[in-house]
Amino acid sequence: MSSTAVAYARQNHPRFLNELKALLRIPSVSTLPEHKGDCRRAAEVLAAELTRIGMEHARLIETAGHPLVYADWLHAAGKPGAPASAAADSSAGWKPTALFYGHYDVQPTDPLDEWVSPPFEPEERNGNLYARGSADDKGQVWAQVKGLESLLAANGKLPLNVRVLLEGEEEVGGEGIARFVASKPAELKADFALVSDTELFAPGLPTLCVGLRGMIYTELEVRGAKSDLHSGMYGGAAPNPFVSLAQILAKLKDENGHILIPGFYDDIIAPSPEELAAWRSLPFDEEQYRITEVGSRTLVGEASYSVLERTWARPTLDVHGIPGGFTGAGAKTVIPAKAVAKVSMRLVPGMTTAKAFALYKGFVEQIAPGGVDVEVRLISAGEPCLIPVDNTYVRAATRALKEVWGKETVFIRSGGSIPIVGDFDRHLGMPSVMMGFGLPDDNIHAPNEKFHLKNFELGIESIVRFLEEAGR
Amino acid sequence: MSSTAVAYARQNHPRFLNELKALLRIPSVSTLPEHKGDCRRAAEVLAAELTRIGMEHARLIETAGHPLVYADWLHAAGKPGAPASAAADSSAGWKPTALFYGHYDVQPTDPLDEWVSPPFEPEERNGNLYARGSADDKGQVWAQVKGLESLLAANGKLPLNVRVLLEGEEEVGGEGIARFVASKPAELKADFALVSDTELFAPGLPTLCVGLRGMIYTELEVRGAKSDLHSGMYGGAAPNPFVSLAQILAKLKDENGHILIPGFYDDIIAPSPEELAAWRSLPFDEEQYRITEVGSRTLVGEASYSVLERTWARPTLDVHGIPGGFTGAGAKTVIPAKAVAKVSMRLVPGMTTAKAFALYKGFVEQIAPGGVDVEVRLISAGEPCLIPVDNTYVRAATRALKEVWGKETVFIRSGGSIPIVGDFDRHLGMPSVMMGFGLPDDNIHAPNEKFHLKNFELGIESIVRFLEEAGR
Repeated sequence: MSSTAVAYARQNHPRFLNELKALLRIPSVSTLPEHKGDCRRAAEVLAAELTRIGMEHARLIETAGHPLVYADWLHAAGKPGAPASAAADSSAGWKPTALFYGHYDVQPTDPLDEWVSPPFEPEERNGNLYARGSADDKGQVWAQVKGLESLLAANGKLPLNVRVLLEGEEEVGGEGIARFVASKPAELKADFALVSDTELFAPGLPTLCVGLRGMIYTELEVRGAKSDLHSGMYGGAAPNPFVSLAQILAKLKDENGHILIPGFYDDIIAPSPEELAAWRSLPFDEEQYRITEVGSRTLVGEASYSVLERTWARPTLDVHGIPGGFTGAGAKTVIPAKAVAKVSMRLVPGMTTAKAFALYKGFVEQIAPGGVDVEVRLISAGEPCLIPVDNTYVRAATRALKEVWGKETVFIRSGGSIPIVGDFDRHLGMPSVMMGFGLPDDNIHAPNEKFHLKNFELGIESIVRFLEEAGR
Repeated sequence: MSSTAVAYARQNHPRFLNELKALLRIPSVSTLPEHKGDCRRAAEVLAAELTRIGMEHARLIETAGHPLVYADWLHAAGKPGAPASAAADSSAGWKPTALFYGHYDVQPTDPLDEWVSPPFEPEERNGNLYARGSADDKGQVWAQVKGLESLLAANGKLPLNVRVLLEGEEEVGGEGIARFVASKPAELKADFALVSDTELFAPGLPTLCVGLRGMIYTELEVRGAKSDLHSGMYGGAAPNPFVSLAQILAKLKDENGHILIPGFYDDIIAPSPEELAAWRSLPFDEEQYRITEVGSRTLVGEASYSVLERTWARPTLDVHGIPGGFTGAGAKTVIPAKAVAKVSMRLVPGMTTAKAFALYKGFVEQIAPGGVDVEVRLISAGEPCLIPVDNTYVRAATRALKEVWGKETVFIRSGGSIPIVGDFDRHLGMPSVMMGFGLPDDNIHAPNEKFHLKNFELGIESIVRFLEEAGR
């Protein structure tokens, strides 16, 4: 299929790239207070550009932190926000509404001395564009904007209705957008979301992420004596919260990676045989992964599941740190009054954060050794999510990707959590198409972040063609 | 027995107390670099005072840290340093040589706002002298010096030979004195040590400490992946060193306080039935101890042993802290590349640090879960020690204490370690008389440290009478 919008995108690509570089020069590091002004500047640049290309109602929406960017174009035929299922008869002229999501904030740059070129001076090398935020996520946001520009410039209109919602706090927890979404504003009435913040499974392999693990992040506090005690004087009679904590943690997960909390696995919806078969055909080598990505003596976990199953479709329990006590150099002979473990569990489809937390908390209270008090606190929670691959919009995306990349799309999951996808599902009843163009080695959150130039180009074309397919 | 030296001490007590206050005003906090000059000043004050009262060869001995203070008086009849056993016939005129030990450095004062009166402005309240270092250990050091002064001033001589060795690094590990003692200098040739750095078991109850636990302090490091990993992406396949560490620690000690390292208990020399019977008659209430000293829900440990046995005569294993990983507020989804536990074991007579460490290290390496590397490092070690209560000098001390305090001496042990006592034994073949006058509630290492004024007074008299008895 020939697309005038794709032709426009190809013709204007050098300009698109230069514009992206300008956006990347803004050091919008959301976690650092000294870059607060830069975050707002990035938001303002995006709002202005959305207006310039023909989107309407572009504006900043204030939050307690960095602002959201909103814009829309709602002139496609049909009634925006009607359920897709009611619109099966597209001959009636009904057009769906898409909600574009991405984020303009970036990670900090330290360790700065490991960057080959400065993080906020974009540089092309080896077919890549190096800069902080190039892949995560400004390059993908700019692909969205340039896709919309190409369609509007080539056709004077969009093939469906579009709302854009960009945030500036993704790297710091996304609290602002979560509250906004939870308030279910009319501005977000849409049929599906296009989330551009993921990656291809391998170079050149068009990929849709259709599953995310959820998470509960907790603190497990163990208290013994009323104050720190001398381990010589009291050792042997006074409870040691660190020892008790170790005893509790050892009862939560065994050495085979199996979580020992009763009932924890009960509600899991296992991947279908078809999905598992598809995963087995992915270009993935466990030994290569062990060596290049993990670098450990062996991989661990449930031996009866493949590594992709373990990280995508099985819950896990990890300890991130154990604050408290003596952590300096040398020796201090203290029995600390308390110890705290940062413990998180990743959850998979079928599980809920509420039930997982209740099971965990109840079990910890049950197994706590004598002499200590335990307290379990929930720090954050995000539901797991699974997008049906036979969803209308997923199918439209698949058709577009096949045309642009010349290959069948692979459906993968991510072991991580993108809380906004769960929020779209829970609060807005809206499925997400997670179509992203990063690569596994893009060094996001690390020095020398890059975005493959070809992926920027094909990303724009993929978005153009996806909208054309979804609006057919 | 009437002692002119005791009479002198009583007569001069107000001056002795004022002099002690002057010493307490010097903030000789050994761990803080900004007090390096104060530590030297305290050492100089002591050396000058030792000269003033008639001790000889008083001088500072430099170390890599704060200086030692040395002085001697070796004019008693007999040959200093001859073994006590060879001197059973005291009619031959042989006199033993005593080595006085104490320390002039003090603990830091934080939290400063919990002090009722400033830590370096000594204040008398409720029959106590409040100041940092009053009980630990300047007050006891000054009791030694004033005991020597009283004997020299009253009699023009001492009843036996005396060497004094004071250190300024007791609160920071005592490395300087340990090296000095290990070099076995002629200056330290003596028959017994008088160590004044312990406490009475209860107010008014003359006490000799005759046993100390030893200790090995270690770091147990567990390494997994080559670098920190995202717990979403890798959770379930990458080893988590904190989880592995918890699994290891839980296998070192069970919930009944029993250490699970094979062979760990094999060489223990249990206290004699007589010693155990004596402990049972001590004024000690386990429930009272739980409430006022520990403040925990219950006491823990080996149920078949009393609390005094558990803390004095049984080895223990404690974890002091687990540095590494994420310890900040909130949530960071990291699988840390490594975790380190600070683990110490207290050892009791019969055990050796070398064997205990070897058993521990071997067992940890044996039980380490798959996927991680473990490394066990020894940070410091001190041997346990036990002083025979039928030792000549212990018997002399008992006679002196009975006279001064009007009660029979109780023989206790300490769960803590005084490494110098082990060093005196190991390098110099010298028993220690641990005769101290602190009280269990003296708040050493805490705000509002105090020294009971009556104990300062009777402490001086006890030292005078002890030397007279030991030199008879």
